[in-house]
Parts: sequence; structure tokens; C-alpha cells
Amino acid sequence: MTSNPRVVFAKRPGDALPVVGEHIILDTSRTIDLDKVPLNGGFLTKTLILSPEPAIRERMRDPSITSYSTTYTVGAPIVAFAVVLVLRSEKEGINVGDYMYGQTIWEAYTVQPYIEGRINYKPEDWAPDTFDMDSLALRTVPNPNGLYPLSRYTSLLGTPGLTAFVGFEGIVEGKEGQTIFVSSGGSGVGAMVVQLSKLKGMKVIASVGSDAKAEYVRRLGADVVFNYKKQSYESALAQHGPINVYWDNVGGESLDAALEALVPLGRAVICGVVSSDNVPPAERYRLKNSHLIMKKRLTLRGFIVPDLIPQFIGKFMTEVPALMATGKLKSEEAITQGFENAPQAIVNMLSSGHNAVGKPVVVVAE
Amino acid sequence: MTSNPRVVFAKRPGDALPVVGEHIILDTSRTIDLDKVPLNGGFLTKTLILSPEPAIRERMRDPSITSYSTTYTVGAPIVAFAVVLVLRSEKEGINVGDYMYGQTIWEAYTVQPYIEGRINYKPEDWAPDTFDMDSLALRTVPNPNGLYPLSRYTSLLGTPGLTAFVGFEGIVEGKEGQTIFVSSGGSGVGAMVVQLSKLKGMKVIASVGSDAKAEYVRRLGADVVFNYKKQSYESALAQHGPINVYWDNVGGESLDAALEALVPLGRAVICGVVSSDNVPPAERYRLKNSHLIMKKRLTLRGFIVPDLIPQFIGKFMTEVPALMATGKLKSEEAITQGFENAPQAIVNMLSSGHNAVGKPVVVVAE
Repeated sequence: MTSNPRVVFAKRPGDALPVVGEHIILDTSRTIDLDKVPLNGGFLTKTLILSPEPAIRERMRDPSITSYSTTYTVGAPIVAFAVVLVLRSEKEGINVGDYMYGQTIWEAYTVQPYIEGRINYKPEDWAPDTFDMDSLALRTVPNPNGLYPLSRYTSLLGTPGLTAFVGFEGIVEGKEGQTIFVSSGGSGVGAMVVQLSKLKGMKVIASVGSDAKAEYVRRLGADVVFNYKKQSYESALAQHGPINVYWDNVGGESLDAALEALVPLGRAVICGVVSSDNVPPAERYRLKNSHLIMKKRLTLRGFIVPDLIPQFIGKFMTEVPALMATGKLKSEEAITQGFENAPQAIVNMLSSGHNAVGKPVVVVAE
Repeated sequence: MTSNPRVVFAKRPGDALPVVGEHIILDTSRTIDLDKVPLNGGFLTKTLILSPEPAIRERMRDPSITSYSTTYTVGAPIVAFAVVLVLRSEKEGINVGDYMYGQTIWEAYTVQPYIEGRINYKPEDWAPDTFDMDSLALRTVPNPNGLYPLSRYTSLLGTPGLTAFVGFEGIVEGKEGQTIFVSSGGSGVGAMVVQLSKLKGMKVIASVGSDAKAEYVRRLGADVVFNYKKQSYESALAQHGPINVYWDNVGGESLDAALEALVPLGRAVICGVVSSDNVPPAERYRLKNSHLIMKKRLTLRGFIVPDLIPQFIGKFMTEVPALMATGKLKSEEAITQGFENAPQAIVNMLSSGHNAVGKPVVVVAE
């Protein structure tokens, strides 16, 4: 028997940052017989890399709060993105040695398709246009054969990269010479937006939460990077703007400053609001500049990646691997070693200015 | 010699409501010789109807504040929309007896094209995409010959009607059975949006600032009308929503409530922000629900009418007169008699909940 640790969602964190041991716990009580566990027509995977991402926090909310995604079930394991390796298979088209990427249970080994943690999703029971996150199932991805690290499937080639790509293609409409401001420029999505903007010939201003991240985003090519803990959004954009486009991963104060700095007919792509996710409603930043949406005839558009995948997935698959191969798209990872550190990696990812630089990943096995 | 009163813009009102006698004054010192005043190749017009509209307030701002329009010159006459009659003409294509509609000096008689009050507009001196309001010059309009009142040129057939029409065609994308919320439903723009929405088969919720206006907007066909001074936006939309589209003439608290009531993938057309125009920045309503733009994947778009005129002016000219003729588009006017009351009519138009019902017009002469 082999130990099969898992990350369990134990309690909803309300408006606060989740705490390891209280809301997210490591369960080491399980074991698995890798050779004999019944597959029932499915396949057995070994988890290699976990990808902590803000959508995990979203799924921890109370189900009564309408949002774009289905929620987690208390007491069930965390389900989120990961890269896995197929150890055994009874399913046609899935072969031993395949690498796969997608939503899976955060545990060391899983008989797929997973059942535990998957919510019993009935579209009619949910608010309209709620997206069933469990539908982002594992799919086979090319074996990188050393061309690039497997972890790229959680950054440039994964959901963060895809989010940035489809939003950039579908909403930004950036033009050479224009200026874009990207908040949380060192995040998985932000790092990709910074690079796509530079490839387009745009001037890039990015904000980050630590000086180490500022260096990273400069390495990615951003023209101006500021640490919002040392210089306010308002002051930095007054100094380096105006801007034609705002890519918002943060919300709140950054959006307010961007509204001030946007040119007439400018646009804002609203991709994330991490600044308010762990803050009670009464303490959230309240926007003072919303009248400028009219005065400057701005367009603000919120989106999630499934909204734009059908239009742009083909282009993504064609262009991104080639841009990676030629070094035009780069990524660095903030590696946490060991499955036992996965709960804390989620919390760190949600804590602004955590010192780690690059896309957070948890390496469970080589 | 004939008396030629005019309305002069005497002082910028800052963030406050303008005051008659201080910011806007009636100047009765002038006279004009209607028979002999030199036309210099132009034409002489008699002002029939003045159209007080929120854009007048916008043009009173300090020129250092970036917005969509050019500003007024202190000491010069007010320039705004009006219906005029041609008394004499030396200009080819402009004939005695022609009715004209557009921007003109607010005075009883004017030698056109007017010079006074027109700013010396150089696009390169203004923020990008600033719209030169003076360019909305007078143009000849059909003689209604009793088919409809001349005042329709300031409502359904004028800038308010056109604004509503192009925004509805270009941004709303409303569908039969969907619900739209229109704030300031009794305004010139609001009244048209309410009716266009009903023609589309939508459910219409509208807010107004007085019970008399509520009755008016019900006469226009709105399904639900509430007086926001008696029921909060939040409460009314919780009761009658959710909504698919928000047409915003007001901003602030109404927008916040609409963000809460909008369905996922809903949209907001940001057409006006009268709630903040006469309020100092520190006292303006601050938005608490901006995070919902992302959570619900909403689109917010600010616009002014020139942005969409090229696309939809043809459709407007074809459809609106016919809809008026068949009684499918209606309008009522709040008539102020007498040029001397024009300054107060501007202030009334800017004062929420002023009792007058219908599109405000000042009838100067029959």
C-alpha cells in the first residue's frame, strides 16, 4: 500500500483568507494499492504538479453567492488544475505514460474520472451562466520531451496563459504604440499579458506586490514596473500614463486609478478582483471614479476564459507553443516542493506580495 | 430696434448646482435691427424653442477637467440646442421660413453662423477625442405642418431621441422577453429608451424622481416605475429584477444597485451621470459592487451620441418619424413660457425630482 495524501476543503472561509488546518487541511490517512485498485474502465493517475490559482478561492465561497463558477463541497477534496501521469488505464485512448492536464482531485494518486469532490451539477439548479468547473476535465497533452518543463502546462500553456491569450485577442484590441497597464503583472495571467502586449509593440506598465516580482516582470519585458506597496496606483499612473487599455487582475483601488488614467474611448478588461476576495464587503474599496466611464466613454468588460475559448483556442494552440519554442514567451515558476505543502501554497498564492516570484506550482513528483 | 435678450454664462459653478444670477444670467441690454442687421452672407434666425439638456452642465466645467466635450467660455452666451426660424437669408440653401435645429446661441435673434460663444476649437489643444460641441450646427429640418409639434425636434427627433436610438441600436442588444432598467426614465433620453424597449418586447423597469413623473413614464408603457426618493434602487431592483440590461442616465447609487441586479453576461449602457455632476468629488457616491463586473462577466460601456451617429443615423431618420406618426413613440413636454425664464429652466432641468413632467423646453416664440 502507498500513502495517498490529499487536500481537503474543510470549512468555508467567508470573506477572510483561508487558514491551513482550519479551511484547508492535509489528510494523510489514506492509502492506495497502485497495482490492484480497481479502475472500473477508467485510469489511474499520479499527480506530478499542482497549480494554485485564484479560482480556487472563488469556489470556496458560500453557494448562495452568485458567481461564475460552481462551488466546492465542504468535506470533499479540493479539485483544481494539475498535471498528472497515467500509471494504468482501462480506457481507450488513454495510455500508460500519457501526460494529462486539467481539473482533478488534489491527491497523490487518483482513479479517474474522479467522483469525490465533483459536485452534482444541474444547470437548472444554478444561477444562469454559472460555469461548471468540473467540466474542465483532464485531457492528454503532448509529452514535452525536454523541450520545455512540464510546469509550462500550468502557466503559459495552461489556464493562466489561455485566459490571457483569449482576453487579449478578444477584448484588448491593443495597437502598436499604445500603452497597457497590467495589475498583478507577475501572476500567471499577468505575466502572459505583459508579454503578449510587448509582442504587439505596446508600452507596458505593470504593478506587482514585491520588489522581487518587479524584477521578474522587468525580465519579461515590461517597460515600467512599480510595487503598489511603495507607490500608489494613482501616483504611478499619473507619472507613467495615460493608458489606452487596463488589464485588471486586482480590482478596487487599481481600477479606480486606471479609470483616471485611461484615455477617452479606452477599455478595461476585468479578469480578476483579488483585492476584494478575502475582504468583508464593508471593508472593500469603494470606487470613486465610476462617473468617468461615461465622461471618457470607456468600455469595461468582465470575462472568464470559457466565454472566449471557442473563438480563440485554435489560435492559442497554433501560436503559443511556437512563441515558447523561439523564446518569445517566457515563464518562471515559484516552486513549492512536496504534496504536504500544497495547502500553504494555496494561501500564499492568495496573499498579496508573497515573496515567491513566478507562477506558483507545487511539485509533487518528478 | 427689437429687444434681443440672451443667456450669458457668467461664472463656472464648480461642483455645485449653477445659480441663476450668479453663474447663468439673463442679459436684456441688447437690441437688434431685424430689418437692417448685416448678414455678411449668412442668415438671421428667430429662436422659437430652447432645449435644456444635461450637456449644458458638462460644458460649464473647468476646462482643466477632461471630458467628452469642449467647455463654455465665461462671459460668452450659452450655446445649446434650439429650434429656430429663418427670418432673412443671404446664404444659398437656407431660405426664409425654414425651420432649423441644432446648437445656437441662446438669444432671441441671431445672425448665423454665430461667432460669439463659439470656442476657438483646435483639436490639438484638447484632450484626445474631445468632441467639439459647436460642430453640432443648425441644420434645416422638415416643416412639421401640424403633423407634430415643433418641440419634437428637441425630444424624440432631437438629440435626446437620437442618443437613445443609437445607444439602443448599438449597445443594448436587447431581446424580447428580457428586462431592462432605465434610470431617469422621464428624461428626454429615458423616455425614448423606455419606448424603444417596449417596442422590442422587453420588460421595462424605470426610476424617476417624482410621483408625477412616475405617472408619465407609466403612460409611456413602462411595466414598473418607482420613485427613487421613496424606494431605494437596491430595494426596487431586488423586488422587480433581475435585469439583463441597465440603461444608466444617473450613475452612482443606481449603477451600484444595477450591478447587483444584472444577470451574468448582462450589460450596462452608461449614458449619463447626473447624480454626480453637481456634487463635489469628496461627496460623490462610491461604488461598492465593482467586483461584480468580473464575477458576472458584465460589460459596461460609456458613450456619447457622436460615437454612434455614423452607424445609425440613417435608420433613425427612416424609423423614428414613422413610429411617431403611428403613435408608437410618444413624448410630452414640460413647457416653460418666455425667454426670460430660460436660465431657471436650465437649473430646474439639473435639479432631480423637479415636478415638471416631460422633456423640458422653453418656448420663446410661436
